[in-house]
Amino acid sequence: MSFTYPSIRTRLENGVLFATLDAGPLNLLGVDLVRDLVSLVDTLYSDPGDVRVVVLDSASPEYFSAHVDLTAVPEYTAEAAKAGGPGDGSLGMFLYKLARVPVITIAKVRGRARGGGDELALACDMIFAARENAVFGQFEAGTGSVPGAGGIQHLARRLGRTRAIEALVSADDFDADLAERYGWINRALPDAELDGFVERLAKRIAGFPPQGVRAAKRAVNDLTLPEPAAVRSDAMAFRDLVALPESRERLGHLADRGLQSPGDLERDLGEAVGQYPH
Amino acid sequence: MSFTYPSIRTRLENGVLFATLDAGPLNLLGVDLVRDLVSLVDTLYSDPGDVRVVVLDSASPEYFSAHVDLTAVPEYTAEAAKAGGPGDGSLGMFLYKLARVPVITIAKVRGRARGGGDELALACDMIFAARENAVFGQFEAGTGSVPGAGGIQHLARRLGRTRAIEALVSADDFDADLAERYGWINRALPDAELDGFVERLAKRIAGFPPQGVRAAKRAVNDLTLPEPAAVRSDAMAFRDLVALPESRERLGHLADRGLQSPGDLERDLGEAVGQYPH
Amino acid sequence: MSFTYPSIRTRLENGVLFATLDAGPLNLLGVDLVRDLVSLVDTLYSDPGDVRVVVLDSASPEYFSAHVDLTAVPEYTAEAAKAGGPGDGSLGMFLYKLARVPVITIAKVRGRARGGGDELALACDMIFAARENAVFGQFEAGTGSVPGAGGIQHLARRLGRTRAIEALVSADDFDADLAERYGWINRALPDAELDGFVERLAKRIAGFPPQGVRAAKRAVNDLTLPEPAAVRSDAMAFRDLVALPESRERLGHLADRGLQSPGDLERDLGEAVGQYPH
Repeated sequence: MSFTYPSIRTRLENGVLFATLDAGPLNLLGVDLVRDLVSLVDTLYSDPGDVRVVVLDSASPEYFSAHVDLTAVPEYTAEAAKAGGPGDGSLGMFLYKLARVPVITIAKVRGRARGGGDELALACDMIFAARENAVFGQFEAGTGSVPGAGGIQHLARRLGRTRAIEALVSADDFDADLAERYGWINRALPDAELDGFVERLAKRIAGFPPQGVRAAKRAVNDLTLPEPAAVRSDAMAFRDLVALPESRERLGHLADRGLQSPGDLERDLGEAVGQYPH
Repeated sequence: MSFTYPSIRTRLENGVLFATLDAGPLNLLGVDLVRDLVSLVDTLYSDPGDVRVVVLDSASPEYFSAHVDLTAVPEYTAEAAKAGGPGDGSLGMFLYKLARVPVITIAKVRGRARGGGDELALACDMIFAARENAVFGQFEAGTGSVPGAGGIQHLARRLGRTRAIEALVSADDFDADLAERYGWINRALPDAELDGFVERLAKRIAGFPPQGVRAAKRAVNDLTLPEPAAVRSDAMAFRDLVALPESRERLGHLADRGLQSPGDLERDLGEAVGQYPH
Repeated sequence: MSFTYPSIRTRLENGVLFATLDAGPLNLLGVDLVRDLVSLVDTLYSDPGDVRVVVLDSASPEYFSAHVDLTAVPEYTAEAAKAGGPGDGSLGMFLYKLARVPVITIAKVRGRARGGGDELALACDMIFAARENAVFGQFEAGTGSVPGAGGIQHLARRLGRTRAIEALVSADDFDADLAERYGWINRALPDAELDGFVERLAKRIAGFPPQGVRAAKRAVNDLTLPEPAAVRSDAMAFRDLVALPESRERLGHLADRGLQSPGDLERDLGEAVGQYPH
């Protein structure tokens, strides 16, 4: 096995693969990043070598991952489809496969994790975030759509009915402390302590006999992950809703204001989706 | 459509229907309020007009809604039955219908929300409460009965096993901060900020394309609401238990001390149910 | 009925049975304690007398219960088997029976509740813990195994996917405040207030008519407890994993360093399982 990718920097140390997403300032889940994540997850299934734990973070200080590349939905979907069997061509099914990978995955989040970027974090086994700057959000409802890659399934189960509805239909930003209070993430930690905390935890788990770790993860997954049919259904709902005229109008309006470019609109996207038509 | 009711004051603004329960100082869920709520929900299903979001609050500063009118259970049940199909004549089935209404509902809670009043809040899509004065409680176990209109189903799913059992069998009052920590409500906010927060959120959601908002709510409901059979079963358990001699004795004792009148006993009902026979 | 046991001190007062585990400084779940707990639960089912609520605490200030007696797994399992039907010979099935007992049970936790000791607390209907000294942990993954007596089932449902995976695969200690934030326990309270709080709550519930209390507990159990098959499956996973060479090596290493003796290793067991081979 080898863990070398154009858009993911990796370092293997004591059974821990530190994987840093490095696909531009927004770390958009587009063709490059999805292709490399699919490749990484494929290797974790087929030939993990010494890897027991993966720590996923971002090379961009302001964005864990802004969201999917909305200009290339068919293209990144085609990359995601390479992860699955026939008929399972969606980012959601790929992230579902990531959630079941037989090593432990930890998302270490600084900056914004919105839309598909949040769903990438939710597919990991744990999420630790920097209190000062991490932001979580599913902004899709603000543009006429719904999260299509796991956001509905994870948040409904984790946050409970009223908080999940709030998170999904408010389309708003949730800072790390509120995300912790809502059960969206494991914990918010001071930015200065985040690296040390996650590294210690990852190396600790990597040092345990693997059979118990794997059995525990599998048992929790069996109790908390959705059926594949629900994952497929959400992916189709996203695909259908995002194509409606009103959704295209909203996304076009956001594009005119700077969507997918580093700048104020992406920085405050939760606020921005609430400002239409102005 | 028209939103005019004897016991609910309404105001429609930017797609948000502000609906203020105004059925006396305790806002008891009796014949008047249930009749008008049934009528409101019926219109939200059949002819919502511009309404995208409903904000439910109370005209009484001390009571969101004290509980059902225990002197008129058959009468308000008959009103609730008008909401449903044959055989579904219960407050629980009506609140279940409210939980599935295809607009977003937000309970803005000041003062006490106990028993059926709490279940009314739980049937809404979000609950925001004033930190200084909101109180939540299901006092039924203190009088020999159980919540019959959704309290068991919502709390067991939202709070988890041990906290739900505590809430239900302690029959005690939970202030807004504790209710937030337990996941009973979305958030406790300072009283002075509550109106502004809820109004901004409601108008924001009302401004989104409706298809995504509705799809997200429906998806979360499908994952978090009970089957109708469980709702019916709880309604029957309440009806049967409240009729037992020991329950009638406890309720009679509370009636002698001021139940259903504005005053100390209603104000501190959580404490009062623990004081028997004294 | 009589509530007299070699390793559990009891006192009955106003319908509340105060049951204090007194099986040595670590309160190991070994032959003595399991035998007496089985006997106590059996009486609570068959002949509870005036008992409406049981408060479970420990005579040892540092340990609610350290864990099972790892030198006597077949022996305490044989005692646990006396609680159940044929084929249900496991601590997990006994604790499952405890979770369904038709009186209310409250765990009042000071000191460490790890492994089976934590699972004993999780099987109770409520858990209140001393903020200054209570510690919760499932250390099994650190020794190659998994919790076999309910830890997986309870934590996956209560904490949600990512926090449950963290709790189980980190094998780490969680103090009372963090356990409250994660929904592992009902509440952390100041040590000085814990006794008074639990006694008031227990006597309050014991004074209510029993039918509503029992119906509420049963309803929540039906919604939140696993199927017996899952309980059996976890018990078998524990039994199989703990017998693997790598697990035996880790447990042997811990035994050499002081496992099952009062002292530093047991005190800091969460830390200790992360230190191997050193």
